[in-house]
Amino acid sequence: MVNGTGWSPRSWAWPSTRWNRFNDYGYYLRSAQVAHDAGLDFVFLSDHAALQRDNTSAPIHSFDPLVLFTALAAAVPDIGFLLTASTTYNSPYNLARRIATLDTISGGRVIFNAVANFNEDISANFGSAGLPDRPERYRRAEEFLDVVKKLWLSWDTPTGDAPDHELWDETVARRIDHHGEFFDVAGPLNVPTGPQGWPVISQAGASEAGVDLAGRHADLVYASLLSQQAAFNYRAELEEAARRHGRPAGSIRILPGLNVVIADTRREAEQLRLRSLGFTHEDELIASLAVTFGLDPAAIDFDRPLDPETFRVEADQRWPIGFTRALAEATTEGALSLRELSRVTNGAHRVFVGTPADLVEDVTAWWTSGAVDGFNFHFQVTPDDLEYYAAHVAPLMREAGLVAPREPGRTLRSRLGLADPRDVAAATSVR
Amino acid sequence: MVNGTGWSPRSWAWPSTRWNRFNDYGYYLRSAQVAHDAGLDFVFLSDHAALQRDNTSAPIHSFDPLVLFTALAAAVPDIGFLLTASTTYNSPYNLARRIATLDTISGGRVIFNAVANFNEDISANFGSAGLPDRPERYRRAEEFLDVVKKLWLSWDTPTGDAPDHELWDETVARRIDHHGEFFDVAGPLNVPTGPQGWPVISQAGASEAGVDLAGRHADLVYASLLSQQAAFNYRAELEEAARRHGRPAGSIRILPGLNVVIADTRREAEQLRLRSLGFTHEDELIASLAVTFGLDPAAIDFDRPLDPETFRVEADQRWPIGFTRALAEATTEGALSLRELSRVTNGAHRVFVGTPADLVEDVTAWWTSGAVDGFNFHFQVTPDDLEYYAAHVAPLMREAGLVAPREPGRTLRSRLGLADPRDVAAATSVR
Repeated sequence: MVNGTGWSPRSWAWPSTRWNRFNDYGYYLRSAQVAHDAGLDFVFLSDHAALQRDNTSAPIHSFDPLVLFTALAAAVPDIGFLLTASTTYNSPYNLARRIATLDTISGGRVIFNAVANFNEDISANFGSAGLPDRPERYRRAEEFLDVVKKLWLSWDTPTGDAPDHELWDETVARRIDHHGEFFDVAGPLNVPTGPQGWPVISQAGASEAGVDLAGRHADLVYASLLSQQAAFNYRAELEEAARRHGRPAGSIRILPGLNVVIADTRREAEQLRLRSLGFTHEDELIASLAVTFGLDPAAIDFDRPLDPETFRVEADQRWPIGFTRALAEATTEGALSLRELSRVTNGAHRVFVGTPADLVEDVTAWWTSGAVDGFNFHFQVTPDDLEYYAAHVAPLMREAGLVAPREPGRTLRSRLGLADPRDVAAATSVR
Repeated sequence: MVNGTGWSPRSWAWPSTRWNRFNDYGYYLRSAQVAHDAGLDFVFLSDHAALQRDNTSAPIHSFDPLVLFTALAAAVPDIGFLLTASTTYNSPYNLARRIATLDTISGGRVIFNAVANFNEDISANFGSAGLPDRPERYRRAEEFLDVVKKLWLSWDTPTGDAPDHELWDETVARRIDHHGEFFDVAGPLNVPTGPQGWPVISQAGASEAGVDLAGRHADLVYASLLSQQAAFNYRAELEEAARRHGRPAGSIRILPGLNVVIADTRREAEQLRLRSLGFTHEDELIASLAVTFGLDPAAIDFDRPLDPETFRVEADQRWPIGFTRALAEATTEGALSLRELSRVTNGAHRVFVGTPADLVEDVTAWWTSGAVDGFNFHFQVTPDDLEYYAAHVAPLMREAGLVAPREPGRTLRSRLGLADPRDVAAATSVR
């Protein structure tokens, strides 16, 4: 993840860094190059089309991901781009065309992370209607993905000898004539089908509607998973959802977020974690987490197991359901105190604190058990922690055989072992 | 102009070129590099968010301009990007953010060409409502530009020492709280103000509403002008419109389109022109132009002066009003036969046919008279004609003193001598 200045809220003002680097293309370019050299498969930008409310925190969503990634794709070879864009606040024709253009320009390195936005600050930048309710946003996301997939296969890639007279006809560039609840789109797209057929599709929903959407459309999911057991449970749900939609087993890759805090010794890593959050003692961190959870830090015993009922998913909650769900699972699975929980999660994603060797061991265990297919690393302070990773973790990851060699010209879809939608579309129908 | 494979409808299948290069990023990259080396100030992409109907013609609108230009900006230094995007089929928040991101990444090299689309093939990709009428499209374009300008100045560029505690406050990143006929946008933008304040604004409208919009918002206009007198008339109208909106004299640069057909001798250039249109004799070209104009080639004397009433602007016409207007002016100004007219225009823009020295003479005459501030060259076949220009015309242009030296790090706005909107906004109000 290469958002802003890092995951730590104090990362923007971190000593030895430039506070305004979030507005500097050269800084992101350097991050992408380091990630490439470290053998990472892709870089990720989450997104939020509004200025965040907390103005003391790190600015994590400034540049537009589509535009930033396009510049990086022109400058850094081979590495992929996990690109977040809203299905609520884009039109499918424009976004399909823009992503198709990037996928072709980059030689098939795009993952489209489709997000059904959940935030009223965003909706206030896109009209007076307010945020649609969750079911409507998911119905729209589903139809949005139907439309863009149809558009992405609407004009066959132009190869071979020049046609005699017409550059295309209706067998080569086909109207889609989509008419649905949210969209009417004639097509065809004015960009031919790209090198991946369509980009790899990513999704992050963990609600019932989110899992169903992933089961139908996603090649890859970005999730909050605090234990391997939670990952196995989640995979079973995704597989069931995929099966319901007629997709073969093993169609979906799971890549949970992982906050990594790494240093030469465990003690230094522990200190780094506290410091990166602006704390000097663990109890301050726990108290802060309690507030995040809506608990009163003065009224709660940090060392007493939490009531499993502490975390309950509400159908209309604003906070992502996946985060609440991960906390509920963790506290149900084991009798965790707030102190124990604070060592596992930052409230949103799993936290790992330790040495480079510890991290490789952790990642290897999760991967060899089959719980996950990879991780989405969140660094606390960039570029520092990313550079530390490249220097100290990446060599160990290579030694452990966890880094696939680069194969220039190979698409990300092929690298991830995913089916080409041109084959799939021939077998099943794109509704 | 670097659209597609060139202006000639047969350019896609031109001998010695690859027919499917319109889908190849490397081809556009080469064009931008050649344009840069030839001393051109910027490259231009017009746009049309639908596959064109004529499938025998050159595919001129395939890749999305925003994405293609971003890749080129990361790869080619100094040169500017005249980026066309629709004010009818984009949301102001997303487009403002994407353009701001590119303007910052590129170091201030963006010109935003705001287009109020006039085509039903486009509207059919964006819903079932059909094309709004022209007045509504222009009212929307006007409000769209109001909103994006407010967004572009909503968050001050972060410079200087790190703030003590808060990265921004409401004096630094300001809500815009825009509520209008078409848009409700809270703001601020989550991208700080870019190096140009806001990008250079371009507009191409020639209707009454178009001229008024340019007078209010445009720094630069792209126009169809067939004679210097037409250019002087047009400038007077633009100046009057700018004055009405409280802008100082000389605020708007005029850059008409110019179809250049250049070869070592005039005879070769004449032949090239016919060949590039797929004709062997001039009468075929004239007949084709007659059809474009809705005239019957069999019933018209190619050498008899045209009735000045032949070309009349209709308020609801689909074809750009500027093209019709240019033809009407040309035939009113002089008693032109269809043959004479065919040597001046392709129906849309002025045509120049001749040697490199002829072109430099023509351009110098238009420029020194003050009729125009530059030209937007349309090449018949790219990359061939662009490379010919770089090799044979660019050195003469340099000799004639018509190419300003590159000044790395200088914004396009500054290079064009345009005021910084941060100064203007302090003096006048952004409505």
